[in-house]
Order: sequence, then structure tokens, then C-alpha cells
Amino acid sequence: MRNVSIIGIGQTPVGELWEMSLRHLAHDAVVAAMHDAGIERADALYVGNMLSGELAEQEHLGALIADFVGLRGIEAFKIEAACGSGAAALRVGHMAVAGGLHDLVIVCGVEKMTDAPGADTTAALALAADQEYEVTHGLSFVALNALLMRRYMYEYKVPHEAFAGFSVNAHRNGVGNPHAMFRSPITAEAYRKAAMIADPINLMDSSPICDGAAAVVLAPSDWAGHGRGAAVRILASASATDSLAIHDRRDPLFLEAAYLSCQKAYLQAGVTPADIDLFELHDAFSIMSALSLEATGFARKGEGVRWAEDDGARIAINGELPISTMGGLKARGHPVGATGIYQVVEVVQQLRGQAGVNQVREARIGMAQSIGGSGTTVITHILAGE
Amino acid sequence: MRNVSIIGIGQTPVGELWEMSLRHLAHDAVVAAMHDAGIERADALYVGNMLSGELAEQEHLGALIADFVGLRGIEAFKIEAACGSGAAALRVGHMAVAGGLHDLVIVCGVEKMTDAPGADTTAALALAADQEYEVTHGLSFVALNALLMRRYMYEYKVPHEAFAGFSVNAHRNGVGNPHAMFRSPITAEAYRKAAMIADPINLMDSSPICDGAAAVVLAPSDWAGHGRGAAVRILASASATDSLAIHDRRDPLFLEAAYLSCQKAYLQAGVTPADIDLFELHDAFSIMSALSLEATGFARKGEGVRWAEDDGARIAINGELPISTMGGLKARGHPVGATGIYQVVEVVQQLRGQAGVNQVREARIGMAQSIGGSGTTVITHILAGE
Repeated sequence: MRNVSIIGIGQTPVGELWEMSLRHLAHDAVVAAMHDAGIERADALYVGNMLSGELAEQEHLGALIADFVGLRGIEAFKIEAACGSGAAALRVGHMAVAGGLHDLVIVCGVEKMTDAPGADTTAALALAADQEYEVTHGLSFVALNALLMRRYMYEYKVPHEAFAGFSVNAHRNGVGNPHAMFRSPITAEAYRKAAMIADPINLMDSSPICDGAAAVVLAPSDWAGHGRGAAVRILASASATDSLAIHDRRDPLFLEAAYLSCQKAYLQAGVTPADIDLFELHDAFSIMSALSLEATGFARKGEGVRWAEDDGARIAINGELPISTMGGLKARGHPVGATGIYQVVEVVQQLRGQAGVNQVREARIGMAQSIGGSGTTVITHILAGE
Repeated sequence: MRNVSIIGIGQTPVGELWEMSLRHLAHDAVVAAMHDAGIERADALYVGNMLSGELAEQEHLGALIADFVGLRGIEAFKIEAACGSGAAALRVGHMAVAGGLHDLVIVCGVEKMTDAPGADTTAALALAADQEYEVTHGLSFVALNALLMRRYMYEYKVPHEAFAGFSVNAHRNGVGNPHAMFRSPITAEAYRKAAMIADPINLMDSSPICDGAAAVVLAPSDWAGHGRGAAVRILASASATDSLAIHDRRDPLFLEAAYLSCQKAYLQAGVTPADIDLFELHDAFSIMSALSLEATGFARKGEGVRWAEDDGARIAINGELPISTMGGLKARGHPVGATGIYQVVEVVQQLRGQAGVNQVREARIGMAQSIGGSGTTVITHILAGE
């Protein structure tokens, strides 16, 4: 197998982009990534997206976007794994280049969640959960995460305000990211006073519904060096799954798929958690940050939430383990099928030294972990600067 | 890259399977394929499906099905390329094994189109077309194909009844396939008298809305020989795309993506059309049979329809080029995201000599071509008996 590098990145701002349709969002990200990579053609395009059918009445995004960006004719498919769709598409793209089946591959994550007249976005997001055993009982996706958070608070005797630092850190980092949806800092007090969504999850525990697209260009590592920015090597690409329904798991508070996928990734990359200089984790809800840190080996069970102490000082840009360095899902935004690619684009920005005021000093190895469903499909990528 | 073989196949009957949910359909096909291959584990599962979100209110099929068949934990994604989704998933599975990223991969195509209360299946199928430039003008998917058929009849001065042989052949072959939805022969007269759907497409030009699932197990060819049935080698796996909107094409009557994908496949396999012993083509509508035969080099432009002459005698099981040998999309049925895998399963049956009364004599090389949209995403596989 060949080593694979990311030789170009592109992203749109994240937000309620009423004037942009699905294909225009994808176009802007893909064209920016191609320009960054200095390429005018590609062998294949893999698109990560979860909800285009439900919200934009459009499937068949692979060919649609390939054509719209001027690459009509090339291989193009859509890959779906709920909120992990973008990272799943990157996993497929990585396989294609690593295995020698394609040389130049573009991977785009795109989601258009606003501007969907008649569609029920909350119901659409519940398609990530088990329709027959969870959703029919009235559970929304945020309600499922609320059950997990409530259980965590009960089991480990943790008050709700202990999670504040995750959101404070994310919003602090969103300020410096021109592509972030929310660019205002929040305080722990604002977190405590935020409106309730699904008890105990409040507005400041929750990532927003929004639109956005991000893209990367992959090439064999020995081709790298042709792009405008420095190439970044993919040291590991791995995924694993768990049941959709939370009640089917041995321990709902341990994300087994996150554990499995990152263990595979550590092995592939030959690194341990101690080698990770920054971690873009899947903070769709603040409970997910705590669970993700525990499953990936950065904290023992019940102790992930301690990374949020002191307004998240230890996870800040200049902290021990910077997380959500460009705002994370909470502040950059969470256009679901695009998020996995945003995370990787941001790791590339950090490893290239292009993260501006949010630059993590001496960032050499970065990890991105994307989660589809409540810990169901988890895809982990570890990247290193060349 | 490694050679890849199919070491196991499974399929459910196709039909209006009101008592079977999406996950049960997939389960039956996957378990049958694993049993046929003699395996109890796999490294990954790729699921081809188009409409689970719209019709079953369920996305995230990769993990859902992996868990339900007893493979919780493995890598699992859904791949979508409209009606070509099943074949697209096979293409991804082939890449994973050929490239050495996985050894044992299961690919399942599944679609549940009936039993979707409140859903509009015709509207859902139109998600394969261009929402902004075709569907908003009132065009359904069958209407788009009707425009192509009308144009073909006008351009080449062909009467509607000239297409009858495609449907007569498909239904003739459906009789002998226990998994086919329709198992009664039809006459050319019945074809002529069938109820109109979208002029000039009538009921006998159209494949049915139905449910079904099919699966294959892939392994490196040098692992083959362990399954219960003979292994079948994948000589070629290739895909290409065109615009979604028909009006965007230089020549709406030439399926350029079908041409590109089969040219790549011929090159990979080192064969020409003359070497193909049977051809499972994408007869979603009878016009697609004619266009597909022209794009793949079996007929000149405007002459594809001539293969239908004499009740399809030249495309019959014992004819010059057997097509739709187990009933095709028309009579076996077209559960859209599953169809691409059904086609491949049927080619495997033929190459193994397991096609029963429908057996093509001395079948050594078979081709399956799956089409998403009106010729938009086309995936071609060429298989050979070991």
C-alpha cells in the first residue's frame, strides 16, 4: 500500500447560508481545494453527505457535484454514515489512493440543513438513530444524547456545570476562525443560564443546525510537494461500528467504536495518545467530548469531563491537549455530513502552520475523530506534517 | 493490486414483501452470502441503498446492518449512486480488497420500496434526477425516460412495438428464476396493449417498484476455493459519470458514462464485446436496453433496438448474446439500490453453472452494468469463472 497525503484543502464559511444551494456549497469547497492543490483534474470524487435526500430532495450527489465542478465523467459516489459521512468518504478516498486504484482523489463533505421548506430537520437527524427501536418511541437525536449526559452525571456524580469548559473553549476558539459560525466568546455563567433543549442538554451543550462544505485533495505521498500549501501525510485512517440503539450496548457510557477505531489508528500510525499534539473531536454535544476523550485514552472512565475544568484551560490552544482548535462542532458549526472533512481541514491548517491566531505551537501530529449516531460509526484519522 | 474473487452470494426473493423490513431483507441476503462463502466474520460491510431515508426513515444502514447480522464493530458504510448504488458499493468493496486494505468484504444491496406509509415513491425516485433543473419542472423519473424513448423513436424512425422483444425476453427468463418478482411469460401483443404510464412508456416497458436484497462476499483470489460454490473472479470494476440533467448532454441518445465505464472495464479485463457470454444490463425501461447495447459496443447508434427482434430470439438464453438471463430489472424486479448486486449475483450463478433452467451454456465471461439516473452514474463489472 502507498502512503497518502493531503495536498489541498478548501472550505466554505459555516452558517445559515440561505443564498447557497447544496451544489454551490460543494462547488466552492472543491474548487478551493483543487486550487490549493494546484490541480485541474482528478480521478474520482467521493462525497460525504447525510441528509440531501430528506432536506434538499436530491440524491445522486456524486455525479451532480462532479459535473458541477467541471469533472464530468470521473468516478463519483456519495458515502453515508450519518454525522460521520464526511470522514467515511475520506476513509473511502484514502483506500482508493493507498490501494493504488486512483492517484488524485477529491473528498468533499457537504450538508445543507437550513432552507428546507416543509422538512423537519430534527426528524431528519433522527435517521441516524434506530428507527424501529428508538425513534418510534418519540426519541429525537438530542434526547438520546440527553439520556447519555444524564446517566453520566448520575453515575459519576458530576454536576451539569462541570461540562461548561468544553463549550467555553470551543467558542473561544471560534472567535479566531473566519469560517466559524459563532465568533463570540461565552462565559461559564452564560453556559449555565442557557435555554434548555432536552434536559440536561441546553443550548450551549449543542452544536448548531447549519450549512457548509469542506474538501480535501488526496495523492500518493511521493507525489506531494506540488500543491500551494505544504502536504500533510495521513498516518492512519480507521473506522469501527457499534449498535445504533444505545440500549443494545454493554455500557452506554463507553464508546466502544471510538475505542476500536482509535486503537486501530494508533497502531497504523505507530503513536500513542501522548504523541497527539491536537485533537479535533466530535463535540456535537458536550457529553460527547467527555465520552470521546475517555474512549480514545486521554482520560479514565468518568474523568473525561475533568478536561473541561477551569474554563477548559488544559484543552485551550496553548494547553496540554488543544481540542476543537478552530471552534469545533459547537462554534465552527456542525453541517453533519461535512463536519468530518472540516475537522481534517482544520488539522491540516494546524500542521501547516496556517491556523492564524488559533495556531497550536509546534503542532506535528493531529487527530480527527468523527462520530455518526450516538457513538455508532466512528472514523479516526491521524495526520502528520511532512 | 490483488485479484479479487466473489466467494459467496445471497439474495432474497424480489417482490412486495410487506412482512419484511429493511434490516430483515439485508440480513437474509448477507447471512446467505456468508453461508455460501463459508465465513463467519468479515473485515467490512458496504451497503448499496438509495432510498432508505426517504422511504424507511432510516439512514446509517452500514452500522445498522453490520450489527443486525452479527458483525458489530466492523467498518460499515452506505454507498449511494441512485439506482446504481448496489454496484457502486461493490466498486468500493472491490477497491478495498484489491488495494489490500481489507481481506474479507461483504457488499449488500438493499431496497425497501413498498410499505412506506405517507411516502411518495415516484417522488423519491426522482431524487436520482436533477432537482433544480428537471424535477421542479414536473418531470418524474419515468417521464425523463419517456422523453428519451420518444426521441429515439423519432430520430431512428422506430415504432414502439420494436422494443417488445426486450420485455418478452425478460419475462420469459423470469419464469425460471425462483427469486424473480414476475414469473409469467408475456407476448408481444400483451406488450402492445399494456396500460400507458408516460407516453410512450407503458407498463411492459417499466420495471416494477419492489423490495429485495442481495449480497456478495469478496476475497483475494488466492484465498478463493474455500466457499461452498466455485469462486468467480472480478476481471474488471469500473465506473464513470455524466450530467444528471439529460438536457446537459451533447447527445441524449448516447450514454457516454456507459461507454466510458465499459471501455475502462474492457481494458482492465483484456476483453472485447465479442468475449462476453452474457450481459446483465440495466433494463429499468426498455429504452435503456437499446441505449445500453449501443454504448457498450454491441450495436451501432440507432440499432440497439434490433436485438429485440423476433421476440428477442438473439438475446434469449440460447441466443447470440443472452441478456437479462434471470429476468432482468423488468421481471426479476428492480429494488433500486439492490439491483446492481442482483445482477452480479446472477452472473455468478451463470458462471458457476447454478442458473438452473436459465443456464447459459458454456458461460465463461459475464458482464453486469448498473445505471444510476438516466445514464448518469454507470458501473460495469466483468466476471469470469475460475
